Amino acid sequence: MKVVDTPQKMRELAETLRREEAPLGLVPTMGALHEGHISLIDRATSECGAAVVSIFVNPAQFAAGEDYDTYPRTYHADLEACREMGVACVYAPRANAMYPGGYDTWVDVPGLGAPLCGARRQGHFRGVATVVLKLLAACLPHRAYFGEKDYQQLVLIRRMTRDLDLGVEIVPCPIVREDDGMALSSRNAYLSADERSRARAISAALFDAKKKVAAGERLSAAIIQACVDELEEAGSRVDYVEIVEPATLERVETINGAARMAVAAYIGETRLIDNILLEPDDEA
Amino acid sequence: MKVVDTPQKMRELAETLRREEAPLGLVPTMGALHEGHISLIDRATSECGAAVVSIFVNPAQFAAGEDYDTYPRTYHADLEACREMGVACVYAPRANAMYPGGYDTWVDVPGLGAPLCGARRQGHFRGVATVVLKLLAACLPHRAYFGEKDYQQLVLIRRMTRDLDLGVEIVPCPIVREDDGMALSSRNAYLSADERSRARAISAALFDAKKKVAAGERLSAAIIQACVDELEEAGSRVDYVEIVEPATLERVETINGAARMAVAAYIGETRLIDNILLEPDDEA
Repeated sequence: MKVVDTPQKMRELAETLRREEAPLGLVPTMGALHEGHISLIDRATSECGAAVVSIFVNPAQFAAGEDYDTYPRTYHADLEACREMGVACVYAPRANAMYPGGYDTWVDVPGLGAPLCGARRQGHFRGVATVVLKLLAACLPHRAYFGEKDYQQLVLIRRMTRDLDLGVEIVPCPIVREDDGMALSSRNAYLSADERSRARAISAALFDAKKKVAAGERLSAAIIQACVDELEEAGSRVDYVEIVEPATLERVETINGAARMAVAAYIGETRLIDNILLEPDDEA
Repeated sequence: MKVVDTPQKMRELAETLRREEAPLGLVPTMGALHEGHISLIDRATSECGAAVVSIFVNPAQFAAGEDYDTYPRTYHADLEACREMGVACVYAPRANAMYPGGYDTWVDVPGLGAPLCGARRQGHFRGVATVVLKLLAACLPHRAYFGEKDYQQLVLIRRMTRDLDLGVEIVPCPIVREDDGMALSSRNAYLSADERSRARAISAALFDAKKKVAAGERLSAAIIQACVDELEEAGSRVDYVEIVEPATLERVETINGAARMAVAAYIGETRLIDNILLEPDDEA
């Protein structure tokens, strides 16, 4: 397994991998790999001729006051996991190789970046779109794998790659959950035992919403209110609960087709997100 | 010569050209080809294994009220010129293939896009950066050729390709001028005979500025004022005259090293731009 730390060296290697081991797959990560990441990497290594995993905690996507400095970093364990899974290359650039002095180019998807997390995390999706474009440009993959856990990110990156003619297939991968339903996230490491127990309410509230739709409820307002109530009863502070159209992220008032329900909530100081697909033809 | 009209078809062909006829060169144009473009194409075909010329009048870089609708279009003559010069492929997408419904991704280089033409043409450089990224993504060149006539564009595109790790070499090419010094531009076609005669004042004022520097003048304010006076005497309306640092485009008060002097002025209704390199060691 190669480990590469600059865009220039990555691109040079990527040109060869793309040509000789097509299709080339990329799994972009911020490290602190958990079973969610492992499922993406597993899919990339099994579907592609070669897989690149990028590990980069991207300062541009953290707003002021967020957890850039404390974000979990488990670099050596991440490398070992990638090696065991047969990854061809880990791309782990330093921040000053990605954003050298005078850096001043930004990619924006204003419509899809505005609602949900975009309304709360100033500049977050500009940072995400920019770094993903840079990773795609350096790694030259045919396919890139993104988890549905960061649903808004997935939708926005898919739009960006289509709009900019990047010719990369964005492959969405299902959320990986703990036995109690909790979505895996590197930020779960922030939770105390008590918080971890309360955090279960987030996925539970989403599964309850799905059941309500299966039982015939169609009004978003009612489903959202029930979800907010459940979260507050569990002692979490709700950031948002919304039901949106899956591709445009526009709010849905009445559930007539597939919709995505998305939640952001604080458990103690830790902000967690989760989401679920709602379908009116779900069976009760 | 191939003529390709969608990003998908262009990318497919580009993958082959890039592999089999490296290096691949791109000359991005808005058509209405003149000797300035011809010099870029000539350089690309002679230096590269294959050259792609893109022809696309990019609506995203025209501000409201500008000349998008009337911009000169000479498509069939352009194709013939490319064919004669041994161009491998002309990429001529339609606007709705470049910006389909729901299009919403934009590339911005805020610092370099702010001064000079950026301060006058709302959204212009966002449109330029976005379309050039799309052209580079579809055509996959090793090198792309840009004229120094659009100096701010050249500097901004060079920054964008470096910042985004695109791995493309941006090749700057000197301004091509008429016998009387006037810089070639597709917009020169707008000028009446009388206006064409008066337009000569723009390049003449720049050459006079270069002589002043050669004679020892170092104060930008004095050089700029003389230029403004010359342009107004010739009956043109000055949009801006500035002397800037060549890479950062920051204003230069005293000319101690290489600087770029840039002019935008209206001759009648036609807005023209030109620029020149000033160097304190120019000989008188």
